[in-house]
Amino acid sequence: MKTEIITIGDEILIGQVIDTNSAWMGRRLNDHGIEIHQITSVHDTHEHILQSLQKAKDNVDLVLITGGLGPTKDDITKKVLCEFFDCDMHYDEATLKSIEDRLSARSIPMTQLNKDQALVPDACTVLANSEGTAPGMWFEKDGVIFVSMPGVPYEMESIMEKEVFPRLKERVGLKAIYHKTIIVYGVPESMLSDMLNDWEDNLPSNIKLAYLPHQLMIRLRLSAFGDNKQDLQDAVQKEVEKLEKIIPDNIFAYEDDSLGAVIGKILKDRGETIAVAESCTGGSVAYAFTKNAGSSDYFKGGVVAYSNEVKQASLGVKAETLESHGAVSAETAEQMAEGVCKLMGSDYAISTTGIAGPGGGTEGKSVGTVWIAVSDGTSTFAECYHFKRTREHNMERTVQTAMFMLEKIIQGK
Amino acid sequence: MKTEIITIGDEILIGQVIDTNSAWMGRRLNDHGIEIHQITSVHDTHEHILQSLQKAKDNVDLVLITGGLGPTKDDITKKVLCEFFDCDMHYDEATLKSIEDRLSARSIPMTQLNKDQALVPDACTVLANSEGTAPGMWFEKDGVIFVSMPGVPYEMESIMEKEVFPRLKERVGLKAIYHKTIIVYGVPESMLSDMLNDWEDNLPSNIKLAYLPHQLMIRLRLSAFGDNKQDLQDAVQKEVEKLEKIIPDNIFAYEDDSLGAVIGKILKDRGETIAVAESCTGGSVAYAFTKNAGSSDYFKGGVVAYSNEVKQASLGVKAETLESHGAVSAETAEQMAEGVCKLMGSDYAISTTGIAGPGGGTEGKSVGTVWIAVSDGTSTFAECYHFKRTREHNMERTVQTAMFMLEKIIQGK
Repeated sequence: MKTEIITIGDEILIGQVIDTNSAWMGRRLNDHGIEIHQITSVHDTHEHILQSLQKAKDNVDLVLITGGLGPTKDDITKKVLCEFFDCDMHYDEATLKSIEDRLSARSIPMTQLNKDQALVPDACTVLANSEGTAPGMWFEKDGVIFVSMPGVPYEMESIMEKEVFPRLKERVGLKAIYHKTIIVYGVPESMLSDMLNDWEDNLPSNIKLAYLPHQLMIRLRLSAFGDNKQDLQDAVQKEVEKLEKIIPDNIFAYEDDSLGAVIGKILKDRGETIAVAESCTGGSVAYAFTKNAGSSDYFKGGVVAYSNEVKQASLGVKAETLESHGAVSAETAEQMAEGVCKLMGSDYAISTTGIAGPGGGTEGKSVGTVWIAVSDGTSTFAECYHFKRTREHNMERTVQTAMFMLEKIIQGK
Repeated sequence: MKTEIITIGDEILIGQVIDTNSAWMGRRLNDHGIEIHQITSVHDTHEHILQSLQKAKDNVDLVLITGGLGPTKDDITKKVLCEFFDCDMHYDEATLKSIEDRLSARSIPMTQLNKDQALVPDACTVLANSEGTAPGMWFEKDGVIFVSMPGVPYEMESIMEKEVFPRLKERVGLKAIYHKTIIVYGVPESMLSDMLNDWEDNLPSNIKLAYLPHQLMIRLRLSAFGDNKQDLQDAVQKEVEKLEKIIPDNIFAYEDDSLGAVIGKILKDRGETIAVAESCTGGSVAYAFTKNAGSSDYFKGGVVAYSNEVKQASLGVKAETLESHGAVSAETAEQMAEGVCKLMGSDYAISTTGIAGPGGGTEGKSVGTVWIAVSDGTSTFAECYHFKRTREHNMERTVQTAMFMLEKIIQGK
């Protein structure tokens, strides 16, 4: 089932909004064995939308359209859909009722604009939107399915899960697909590729390998296609075992989870806990743990200690350390980690102190200089890194590196 | 200058990577008065890449291609480019030298794969990549410009800034464009649209309005097009003044900055400071401030207090409060805010405590229940919210709401 996603709206084209909807749809369709052939983002102009519908119809079997359905004036998608499917519009009673209920629950008066969201093309099957006022719409033309949904992420997601997937399952005999991601670190992409050359050449023809480098890590994704999910899983497992023999020291984890989630699982299994003391990462190491459901099982807490006074008062960093070595130093990082470990009563601790930039660099310590310390309560070690890009980048790399360091100490490497 | 972005690579189509490159390019091209006509994401297969190049050539004047240039096997873009431009490849000496230097600086041995990154189609002008090994490439065919760049964000950004924009400026007489974004909150989109109807209808024809709803806020974007930037700016300012009279109480800020940056500027101008005490937001309120350059001027620090012990030990929340009212309560939120204000010596404080989900809900307090308190050191007030979606969503809404509450107290509203 060849699929195209069409996103409508200038906000994506001018970069004001990042297209996370397509990524979500790509992942979920993939889970169901449906591959996206193309993603196309177009202006919300009559001509451009119409043209993209026509092109998609010639190329694919399923067209998922998001955006262009809000209550405001810049939305013209429904008119174009009427033209494309050669029909008029009418008020859908169920939608009208649901809009009324939704607004009255929030004590918002109904306007004509709200009411007009219940106007739907005659040619469509209405897909209920339990999260908002604009309904989804399902069309068919010459054997091609078109689904139009609002661009608000949780509304689109809800319509996909509750209305679109069940219908697709009924209609299409879905193929099995199985992905496994291996997170590799400590080896550059080109060198890794050389090491894996023979293994890759000998992969079964239904298993594909992709390299997805992201900062300090490379994700290797194995994708297997076939009829039976269990067979695919077994075949992929065999290949992973071969891979383990080639790069035993560079495999960090086997999932698509974030690093915080991977470490969290290890800690939770062991009944151990972590705390963090952050300067330059400003809360983002804590968030790398806390964004994961269930993190309260292993995450004790953290201190974001931006100023020297806070480093002293909350974490017990010594004044003479700050004076003689500076805030960005091995000694300060170590005392921060030990301090937060003690303060929070955790088994492990991470600390970060550095110059994220763009300002704040000095002659001896340039922007991007970061000290990271990890502690297991007994022993603590610190390492210095020099990241060299934007503030955001330097902060993100510091978080990643801290996770790698923590993983080593946890695993006793 | 009609422009299309083509992104190459399965990782975007299966949703493993979110297409942030296109958003960046959209914003920067827009700054230069260039509008993106379409964004197309395609598989890294020979046929699909070739087809998309041909289609783009028929539709636009400038084609920006990202991805498909890494050192590993899944990259075939260069071969397709050779076919499309009907030429062979050769080793580019300058690129080869730069790859050698880059690798030897990191003590990485040169492999054939590294070397082959210096292979470029004969038809291209090589664009130096100061951040990585794969160079950019500039082609022209029948009056259409094609630029191919690696997909690694900072490499693409560097090539765009240093090589592509200077060339485009030389080639094209750039039109002036001016955007102004007004962040509005506290009014639903449909109601806002009704209130702004007359104003919108009377906008000058060269000024366009777009609604960009995002969770609790709506961004109104005014875009003006013309010859002289100052004239556009004046014309937009006139419209903004009219708008201020229509919705005086709902305008939060006038920029595209994040809420943390907007509040940070106010604090910095006044020489005031903020500290945060977080439970359910787990570091993300702190990060909303610290991700902005210069935040150390006004951000003192924070405590992520996940467990009750930490709330007591670090923030001075009373044991009897936790016992009688619970961790998710007005009293706990208030004591957290007051505690961190005192601990960090800040002028203002924010605290959050709630149930982010998906687990942790109880009969009396459902998932999504959040108490947020803000304090100016003297008076503290707390409000309860009920967010109802995913963990990530609940955390993000809490951060936004906390910012709105803080802004009110700072502005004495």
